[in-house]
Order: sequence, then structure tokens, then C-alpha cells
Amino acid sequence: MNLRFANCRLLASDMTVLDKAELITSGDKIVFSGKAEDAAAAAGNMSFDRVIDCRNDLLMPGFKNAHTHTAMTFARSLADDLTLNDWLHKAIFPREAKLTAEHIYWFLKLGFAEYIANGITSCFDMYFQPDATAKAAVDTGFRFVFCGSVNDFGGIDRLEDEYNRFNSYDDLVSYRLGFHAEYTTSENIMKTISDIAHKYEAPVFAHISETEAEVAGCIERYGKSPVKVFDELGLYDFGGGGFHCVWFDDEDMKIYKDKGLYAVFNACSNLKLASGIAPVAKFREYGINTAIGTDGAGSNNALDMFREMYLDNVLSNIGAGQAAVIPPAYTLEAAVSVGSRCMGLSDCVSLDAGMKADFIRIDMKAPVSLPENNIVANLVYSGNPSLVKMTVIGGKILYENGEFTTIDMEEVRNRTKSLMADLA
Amino acid sequence: MNLRFANCRLLASDMTVLDKAELITSGDKIVFSGKAEDAAAAAGNMSFDRVIDCRNDLLMPGFKNAHTHTAMTFARSLADDLTLNDWLHKAIFPREAKLTAEHIYWFLKLGFAEYIANGITSCFDMYFQPDATAKAAVDTGFRFVFCGSVNDFGGIDRLEDEYNRFNSYDDLVSYRLGFHAEYTTSENIMKTISDIAHKYEAPVFAHISETEAEVAGCIERYGKSPVKVFDELGLYDFGGGGFHCVWFDDEDMKIYKDKGLYAVFNACSNLKLASGIAPVAKFREYGINTAIGTDGAGSNNALDMFREMYLDNVLSNIGAGQAAVIPPAYTLEAAVSVGSRCMGLSDCVSLDAGMKADFIRIDMKAPVSLPENNIVANLVYSGNPSLVKMTVIGGKILYENGEFTTIDMEEVRNRTKSLMADLA
Repeated sequence: MNLRFANCRLLASDMTVLDKAELITSGDKIVFSGKAEDAAAAAGNMSFDRVIDCRNDLLMPGFKNAHTHTAMTFARSLADDLTLNDWLHKAIFPREAKLTAEHIYWFLKLGFAEYIANGITSCFDMYFQPDATAKAAVDTGFRFVFCGSVNDFGGIDRLEDEYNRFNSYDDLVSYRLGFHAEYTTSENIMKTISDIAHKYEAPVFAHISETEAEVAGCIERYGKSPVKVFDELGLYDFGGGGFHCVWFDDEDMKIYKDKGLYAVFNACSNLKLASGIAPVAKFREYGINTAIGTDGAGSNNALDMFREMYLDNVLSNIGAGQAAVIPPAYTLEAAVSVGSRCMGLSDCVSLDAGMKADFIRIDMKAPVSLPENNIVANLVYSGNPSLVKMTVIGGKILYENGEFTTIDMEEVRNRTKSLMADLA
Repeated sequence: MNLRFANCRLLASDMTVLDKAELITSGDKIVFSGKAEDAAAAAGNMSFDRVIDCRNDLLMPGFKNAHTHTAMTFARSLADDLTLNDWLHKAIFPREAKLTAEHIYWFLKLGFAEYIANGITSCFDMYFQPDATAKAAVDTGFRFVFCGSVNDFGGIDRLEDEYNRFNSYDDLVSYRLGFHAEYTTSENIMKTISDIAHKYEAPVFAHISETEAEVAGCIERYGKSPVKVFDELGLYDFGGGGFHCVWFDDEDMKIYKDKGLYAVFNACSNLKLASGIAPVAKFREYGINTAIGTDGAGSNNALDMFREMYLDNVLSNIGAGQAAVIPPAYTLEAAVSVGSRCMGLSDCVSLDAGMKADFIRIDMKAPVSLPENNIVANLVYSGNPSLVKMTVIGGKILYENGEFTTIDMEEVRNRTKSLMADLA
């Protein structure tokens, strides 16, 4: 499949906008992106399945949802009125115990539909049932990165097998080593994970310092913060990073900076669960790589990277007591390029030729896109999912003008409705 | 024009959802809303211009944007990287000085387009050029409530005339007494406004306690908070309220409660400008009427009541240090019903028969609307503008499936582009 996107604008890798541009895909890759005047030479004698007139809309890399639990769409707006502890023990855990592979498959598809409609082209996901998960991703054509979900209740005996199996499963699927968190994972298990990381020279990811209580508990158990525990266990010797990163101290930040680790922020979830506000501006000052994720629909409740970007940016103003602390280009880069590198998708970072054809078309004629005082600021401060007119993953158009090409939403609605009844 | 909306669900005035319902409009009013089985009797021998099958979507009252400066769409993403003081003095004031009636008209139309696409059916607006403004509202078919914009630089000599003129201008237009804020309005001018309020027994509105510095300045000038200054000047003797309300103390809250005043919150603007987080939960405990507004696009930067609702709700969790502090139904009610009463639109409060036909159709088949664990929570915690499939104001369909019926977006784009160039 060869596609030619004419009459477009492009978000360049430095977060500037190139006018009067074209983008050409062949198979699952971008083979040309640049000035329209150079497109004919690049196209040569290629034949195109479609030539799409973008009417001066913007093409940009898809959003990378760098931390999520996609199948938790089942838990959206489920007992939001409970406190965190009751919500977990009365609403979530009893239902998770009933989740079958069929539940996972269909609630993932519901999540993928939301991602695709919202311009998200890949996710970094920690949950159960990897076989049903990988099948749902490939059936949908969605680019899926597993994060290992080991904890004291299980997973360590399967981690190495899953790592090898899902890194050679399909081009759309990959797997990074990971575990739930310090407070749910014994030191012995963490040591075993560190051994596996050293064997494969692989990065490791986990929830980290999400709540103040979690850090206090870790200090009680180990005499030091989770970052320092992980670092001293060698878990970070080949990179990796953490999810949430709300309660980091300066030493934690220095470790993240020195080891080139990734801090993945989840502003909506942290507000909704009252976990706190991550000091994004301080991470930026340290020069730490920062990415953005939605967390699961149970604690967000949307899977919307526009809303995450907005909050990732403006919440820092409150901490700093002044406006405009973080440039919007920094936030947009976190949501597309840095997130991509964090997840190990080094070939989905930008629209440059040679990258995977994972991109979206943004409506530049919608009221909220006007006036064009600053397109990047418009995306970060004003954007919402209604701007996503098209989503392309691996060179395939998965969503166009509100319609899905690989997901039967009628079936997703019917299946998730009846499967939800099982969980009641 | 008679319209019949069949096969729908309705958001009732108590924020519950009525299934298997219908809604009938005649002229600019709702004449029936209730169970589908009662619709035929209500319709009698009415003939309908259209019968719309809502396919089980939700009809709900439109959002009431209870504080905004709509024409400031020109300032969206304009020099966001400046600090507040530089932004005002270098980016905004010099451009505002150049705004003609033509600028106001077209940037208002751009704002109305964004409102209508986002499900907002009326706004409470403080800005300049009321004649061009009222014309833009009526030309669009948008329900517009003026808030007087008096300050030391002008307006007091026109306030009474504007109040009388725009309260008998058109059914879509009304006018409430108002002024900018204590720190921009002398005591003498505030006394004159109080006299006018007493003459007409009318409520008064103003920006209030938006920043900590504003309150400190007021205490320096008057020895008391802005709320107490306004109250003692008699400005609140016939009701009214304030915009932002971030830095209220207990005495301020008690005054707002005792006088039945309206606190209008603007969470996005307050985050973006680092003004602070309004203690919404505490206002709720006091039993104060709370409404929600977007503020202008210069300081938000979107005109999106979904995002405002989300933040109005979840930011309170941070202050309280616990999840689920405010029920989503409270927030939704603020955004639709309480806002309506605040603006003096007592006939736009709900979908009950006799109310103005100002309502929206919400897509219940979108991924983000599923599963239906809690429809009200889905709207508040997950909703975004892409869910708005139709917007009806005064019984006229102004927006349907992405198309405007009274706004020529091509013309709005062209006009605002060339008018923006004048402001450079």
C-alpha cells in the first residue's frame, strides 16, 4: 500500500511546522516527508493506492500513550464515588478476579477504538492476559508495547518467556521488562528482574513514587526512596523509567538524569485519585526525559492525550506560582517523540523518512484551531479529540472522519455490554 | 418550527437519566419531554418539520458558559510564553486598542462557532462593543448574556443605557449589571453601580478574588476583602456574584451563602495564569451556588466546558488530599442548571416543558461513552467536544454532525485571518 498525502503541513521533529508539504508512505513506513516541491522527485514512478488532499491540515506523529492499563475501560466511571481504598477493594479487585481472556480482548478493543479516535497510535501497557492482548492489538492494527506486570501475586515465572515471545510476535507488538511497584513486589523478585535485565541488557519500568504514602512506606522498608532502591538493585543499569513520578526528591531526579531514564507523567489520574501534582518543571530543569500517559480509564477516566498535555503543562504553573513555566513545544515533544523513545519505539519518533507511518491528521479548520497565532500552543492548550480527522498506524488508515476501518464498533458495544454484565 | 426528537434519553433536572424518552419543541420552547409512551398524546395533531431518530443518544441542556470574554478568540495562543504582566501589556492591551467593531463581530462569531461545536448554548460575557456583539449573537442565533464591563477607563456613563437597551433588544440577548473588578474600579464608580442596581433591583457581577495579590491589594486599600467591600457598598443587595473566586475566606463564603450569590469558577484559566485553585469543595459545603465558565480564549485557551467540568471537579481532590470529594452530578448541574440561573436565564435551566429549547445531543456510541457504568460520571470525567452531535438554541438546530447552519466557517476563517493581520 502506497499513500500520498498532498497539500498538508507537517509537524517537524523540532516541533516547528513545515508549510506546503507532502508525505508519502510505502508499506508501513514513511518514505518521504518534506516540501511539496520535492515530492514529485521522491515519488518517482510509485503508484499510489490513494492520494489524499489534506486541504492544508496538519500531519503530526501520533500520540504515544506512555503509561496505561488499556483493558481497564471496563472500570470507567465505575464507583468513582468511593475512596481509593474502597474503590480498589470493593469495585476493582473483585471484578479483575472475574476477567477472562474474552473480557480482556473486547475491553482492549474498546480502548484501542478510543485511542485511535483520539489520535493515539501506540501505548505502553501494563495488565494481564498477554496472549489475548497481543491478538487484540494485531487484529486492530494497533501498535502495542507491553510492560511486564510482575508483582508478589505472580508474573515473575513468566517474565522472561513473555519478553522473548512478544518481542518476536508481530511487528506491531513489543515487550519491555517491568513490574508493578516497589510496594507490591518483594526484594527477591526485584533481584530476579534485575538479573533478567542484565542478561538481556534491557531497560526496566515500574510505577514509582505515585503517592506520598508509597514513598514513606519504602523508606520505612528500605531506608531509602523507591528510585534509590531500584537503582541499587541494578534495575536501571540498562535504562528504563517510572510511571507517575509525583514524589521525587533531588537525589531521585539526579539518578534519573544521570542514567537517562524516562519519567512518565499521568496528570489526570493523579488529580482524580488525589495523588498529587508531579513537579514537571523541575524534571525539565534537570534535563530528564519526560513522557506522558493516560493511566487506565478506571482512574482518569478518559484516554485523551490532549487533556494530559494540557495538564502536564499548566499544572506546573501552580507549583511555580507563575504563568508560562513550560513551553508548549516541550509538552508536545513529550507526548509524541519522547514517549516513543521511552517505549523503545525508536522508529516512531517523528515523520522523517524511514520512520514507521504512525501519524494523524489534525483539523486546522475547526474553530478551536483558529486563529493560527501558534499552532503548537493551540495543540497543547486548546486541542481536543474532535480535531483528529484521520489516524494512520503502520501505513494503514485505521480511522477517517469518525469511522473505524478495522474495528466493528457495533460489535464492540454489544460484546462489552454483555461482558460488563458478567462482572456485576 | 416544530421538532420531534424520538428514541432518545434525557438528562432530567435532578441529573438522572430518563431512558426511552422523547422531546418535542415548538417555536423556541420545549413543549414536551418525558417517556416515549406519553409523547404521542403530547404531540396531538402537531405537524413536525423534522422527526429525528436519536438512536438512543442523550439529550441534555446545553452548557452555560457563566464567565467569558468571547471576542478574545483573537488572543488564543498569542504569546503564551510571556509572564502575565508582559502578556497583558505587550501582547493584549496594544491589540485591544486596535479592535474595531468589525474585529469584535468576527472574533465573536469564531467564538460562537467553538461554543456551538462544544455544546455551549449560552454565555455570560464581559467585553467591549456591545452593538457589534449583540448583532453577532442574533445573526448566529446564539443566546448571549452581557455582563457590564465598567472600569476606571470607561463604561459607567453607558451602563444604565446598555442595561435598558440590551434587555429589550432581542429574545436571545439580555444584560446584567457588572464591572471589571475592585482593583480597576474606583469606589465612586462602584457606588454609582450600586445606585443603578438599587434602582432596577438588579444583581451585580464582577471578577473577584482571582489572585492572592488582588485580595492583598484590596485589603491594603479598604482594610477588607473585595467580597466585603462589594457587600458593604450594597452591590449584592439584589443578588449577583463573582468570577474566579479563588481566594475567598470563610467570611466571604458566608456572605455569598447568605445572599444567595453565585461563585463562577474558571479552573483552566486559573491554572494557566497560575492564579491558584478555587476551593470548590468548600463552596459546596457552604451550600453556595457554583457555576462554571471558560474565561476568554486568551487565558484558557479553549472554550470547552467538558475540560472545565473535569478540572472543577478533580482539582478539589488535591486540596482535600482524597479522591471523590465532589460528586460528578454536582459538577454537571453547575455547568448546566446553576450557570443558567446565575446568568438570569431561568427559562433555560432544564429540559422540562416550558423551558427554552436550548439543548445538545451527546453521542452515546462513541468509545469514550462506554461502558455505561455511570452516564453522568462519563460526561464529567471523560467527556470531550467530539461527543456533541447536535446543538439546538431557541428551537433552531445550529449544528449537526460537524456542520453549522447559521455560521459560514469559510467566511469566519477568511475574515478572522485578515483581521488578525491588522492587529499584528
